[in-house]
Amino acid sequence: MRFASICKDGKTGIALADTNGGCKALFEGDAGYPGTLDDIIAQGPEKLTEAGKALASAPDIDAGTIEYLSPLVKCPKIICIGLNYKAHAKESGMELPEYPVIFGRYNSSLIGHGAPIIRPRVSEQLDYEGELVAVIGKGGRDIPESEALDHVVAYSVFNDASIRDYQLKTHQWTIGKTFDDTGAFGPYLVTTDELPAGCKGLKLETRLNGEVVQSTSLDDLIFDVAKLVSLLSEAMTLEPGDLIVTGTPSGVGIARNPQLWMKPGDVCEVEIERIGVLSNPVAAQ
Amino acid sequence: MRFASICKDGKTGIALADTNGGCKALFEGDAGYPGTLDDIIAQGPEKLTEAGKALASAPDIDAGTIEYLSPLVKCPKIICIGLNYKAHAKESGMELPEYPVIFGRYNSSLIGHGAPIIRPRVSEQLDYEGELVAVIGKGGRDIPESEALDHVVAYSVFNDASIRDYQLKTHQWTIGKTFDDTGAFGPYLVTTDELPAGCKGLKLETRLNGEVVQSTSLDDLIFDVAKLVSLLSEAMTLEPGDLIVTGTPSGVGIARNPQLWMKPGDVCEVEIERIGVLSNPVAAQ
Repeated sequence: MRFASICKDGKTGIALADTNGGCKALFEGDAGYPGTLDDIIAQGPEKLTEAGKALASAPDIDAGTIEYLSPLVKCPKIICIGLNYKAHAKESGMELPEYPVIFGRYNSSLIGHGAPIIRPRVSEQLDYEGELVAVIGKGGRDIPESEALDHVVAYSVFNDASIRDYQLKTHQWTIGKTFDDTGAFGPYLVTTDELPAGCKGLKLETRLNGEVVQSTSLDDLIFDVAKLVSLLSEAMTLEPGDLIVTGTPSGVGIARNPQLWMKPGDVCEVEIERIGVLSNPVAAQ
Repeated sequence: MRFASICKDGKTGIALADTNGGCKALFEGDAGYPGTLDDIIAQGPEKLTEAGKALASAPDIDAGTIEYLSPLVKCPKIICIGLNYKAHAKESGMELPEYPVIFGRYNSSLIGHGAPIIRPRVSEQLDYEGELVAVIGKGGRDIPESEALDHVVAYSVFNDASIRDYQLKTHQWTIGKTFDDTGAFGPYLVTTDELPAGCKGLKLETRLNGEVVQSTSLDDLIFDVAKLVSLLSEAMTLEPGDLIVTGTPSGVGIARNPQLWMKPGDVCEVEIERIGVLSNPVAAQ
């Protein structure tokens, strides 16, 4: 199932999309409206299945007329992984990590498909980072790697847009990774039953103004989704709605010669095979 | 006003304490119960004033019979500042920061006054960090330093307990800063009208088993509360309920010779003058 959080005529809703452009939706106030994706996922994977059933008999909607929101906006945790592809670690001049490089992002930075990524007043160094995101559906602590994928309910696409001079102002990256309107997420949460285990073998591609700037197989993740879930749960209780933003492949703008920054008027797309295309224009604060 | 989130006989509630040990409380289900501190603070500073009035005429309760919870458990952001005292930067072998060192912590790590700080199965390097925490009451972006303190509604005490080997596994500290049951917070949120502006001049002391291990004046913060609010809001919209955990002074266990780790059976107290004493035993996972 492919779920989206949407808005139309000022009303928020939830949509179920098929892979042929078809879309069904329910809005707040409609009979049978199952609630927001945040609330549904907080109640466990069964609730998402129920929501899918409710939406399957909902009215059709023209996908061209809806605004996509960030699928989730109240994630208990947004856990970002750095340097999780060999070629990206190399282009960044960093050693290959023996343990995942972990930093945070806050919900206040999230935007949906189609919304502008905002270049802030204080910087011109706005960079793209196409990434796979895993959404936790079943919480837990000390989850063995062999059971880890059972705790993931869906996958989606993320553009972990980064303000590089702020990221590198000190040795801790978080501030450059959580500016308002830089965490593009969506359009869909695609449930795991529609995808290969751990998204193995799928291709990720980032395009800036139509030109391919990042391209990888998700097989190239140093720490795959199962390993990340297991290692993270050694430290903290994972909760439904947590995001694991799994890291970006090589090709980022800061590592190019000359460096390539996103600027107002650009359009950045991140596509993951069988999950979707996340497209965002760039605008100035 | 001094607010606490509490629990008694399985019921959660909210308490208003005075500085002489007196305490009044309302519990969920009681007439006039104003809701959780998370919900109250999300609705703005006026709502907290109203809650204070409701509690002022509530029944007395024996403070010795209540369990203290983390005052807030759904903070939109927990923003932690590193190396924010000169002597601590020096003992850590790090350069003095010219911009705040910023990393995250997740709500899943929070515990209240009296609850055990948990030394995890995977590490023995459990260290204390006594800190002042500022609670945002009024949100905003691009807040000038001259208005910054108007956005803080309360202060409290924090023990930013750290798993040092995990913090230093990679260059990004977050994982070592957000283990379950390591973010001790409370007992009280003390509203700003009871304290000097920005908590200037107050003394912070950390004691491990009664022995003073950290002692500083809050005047020694490199980036004071007003500066932090202003700088952080350049990057992100601050929201009611956000925490700014302002950094720890010198004296941490990792910088000692020999190194000093907290172990099961220990008791760690952090006291900030006029705000309160946060006391937590240490236990094994």
